[in-house]
Amino acid sequence: MTEPTRRPQRGYLMPIGGAEDRRERRAVLNHFVKLSGGNNARIVVIPSASAFSAELGPEYMRIFSELGAGEVKFADIQERTQANDPDCVSMFENASAIYFSGGDQLKLVALLGGTLLLKKMHERYERGAVIAGTSAGASAISQHMIAFGRPGASPSLRMVQLSAGLGFTDKCVIDQHFRERDRIGRLVSALAHNPSLLGVGVDEDTALIIGPRDDCEVVGAGSVTIVDGSGIEYTDIYDIARYNAISVFGVKLHFLTEGHRYNLRTRIPKPPKKRRNGMPLS
Amino acid sequence: MTEPTRRPQRGYLMPIGGAEDRRERRAVLNHFVKLSGGNNARIVVIPSASAFSAELGPEYMRIFSELGAGEVKFADIQERTQANDPDCVSMFENASAIYFSGGDQLKLVALLGGTLLLKKMHERYERGAVIAGTSAGASAISQHMIAFGRPGASPSLRMVQLSAGLGFTDKCVIDQHFRERDRIGRLVSALAHNPSLLGVGVDEDTALIIGPRDDCEVVGAGSVTIVDGSGIEYTDIYDIARYNAISVFGVKLHFLTEGHRYNLRTRIPKPPKKRRNGMPLS
Repeated sequence: MTEPTRRPQRGYLMPIGGAEDRRERRAVLNHFVKLSGGNNARIVVIPSASAFSAELGPEYMRIFSELGAGEVKFADIQERTQANDPDCVSMFENASAIYFSGGDQLKLVALLGGTLLLKKMHERYERGAVIAGTSAGASAISQHMIAFGRPGASPSLRMVQLSAGLGFTDKCVIDQHFRERDRIGRLVSALAHNPSLLGVGVDEDTALIIGPRDDCEVVGAGSVTIVDGSGIEYTDIYDIARYNAISVFGVKLHFLTEGHRYNLRTRIPKPPKKRRNGMPLS
Repeated sequence: MTEPTRRPQRGYLMPIGGAEDRRERRAVLNHFVKLSGGNNARIVVIPSASAFSAELGPEYMRIFSELGAGEVKFADIQERTQANDPDCVSMFENASAIYFSGGDQLKLVALLGGTLLLKKMHERYERGAVIAGTSAGASAISQHMIAFGRPGASPSLRMVQLSAGLGFTDKCVIDQHFRERDRIGRLVSALAHNPSLLGVGVDEDTALIIGPRDDCEVVGAGSVTIVDGSGIEYTDIYDIARYNAISVFGVKLHFLTEGHRYNLRTRIPKPPKKRRNGMPLS
């Protein structure tokens, strides 16, 4: 198959909040397949983060095929040697989309970080491929990744541990299962460390689609919560000991449901377009 | 006992987020006793919201006495006739503080709303008495009260039901067990209905002390989350059906720990005073 003829431009990122509907309406996964090219899509699934990768790989293959994807493969990488093996890397040569399953984001990054395969994935993304991930796979997409954290609505010290992710975007820190697991405190804690960061909390069965120019749109049943730290007026985080609660003044929140838009560069939210054309971004 | 000689001024309100420490450091309850006048305090406990009111009344009596309160009584009101009985009302004649236990805020308001006793409580508050409540007792203090709600970090329609509370302040809607029960979504939902409201979410073992001129200060182990809806730029709440998620742009959050201050009129948060004098407000 040949490359698309349009000039190379970056693809879409698609962090999904976990527990996406795989049986009924399948709105989020359907959107992913369309964005990947529909019957021209060439999707590679990476189920490696999961403890059930042997089952998940074939399951996603079946679902994406049912949803009309042209070609679907999976690569169940469990050793770094595989991610440096040219035969494995060549599976991704013409991929129009890569899909990371849920599981443990630390495992995923430990397997892929610094490998030839990750380099190839970045190359594909720069030439238009879609990079999607659900749950742990969503967290791993960003440069600064939430590695662990404790739940709670109010922020406290050491509530969140950041580490280096797969680096597809440096514009935001992504958190998932957001509404379901009470994670606003840990995202605010992450921002209090460095108010330049932007937090993106994705609910279950919901995705944020991040376009090539950092225009975003929400799809799915829940919300995406944007936590903007740039207006933080005060925090006492550097005075706090142990695991105590921290004070933070001036965090800005936006709650976006399906069709609502946001730009990661201008940090401005927008209502849905009056006429939807079925694709998320014009 | 005679009235204090200072000119009458409003007292303090003290919503407590529930599960206040009653056995060890007892910081929040100790603060309540000091604010009520210490060994000059005349406290009346209302355990009526609780299903265990017969045990809670004597327990709070013992604790407040141990903490040095001059006089402690309890009034286990279980019928509206009691709340209209002059003998019962006379128990509150010289009260310097009233303490509402946890339980069910609807029961508390249904028992007290429109009675002679509630009128007496307001009179006491206007003449300097402290009005404190924990958990359901905290919710009941405000004019607009959260009657029920569902948990979750993202707001959705019918996630929250407001009803009329005991009306000691119209400046804010109070929510409790805040960090512990994931209630940010329901407070944002309440604000989306009417962005003029201010949400106050109090964590467990934590209190917001609201002074006579609406200067506030936090005491206790957790945080108070201030949810300011006045900057809301957009919401689609009137377009949403059933129980679906709603979009809201521009909610402002402040997370305040012990010693941090806030004014309910100016809506400005402040760091702690450099020198604390043991009392919350100068």
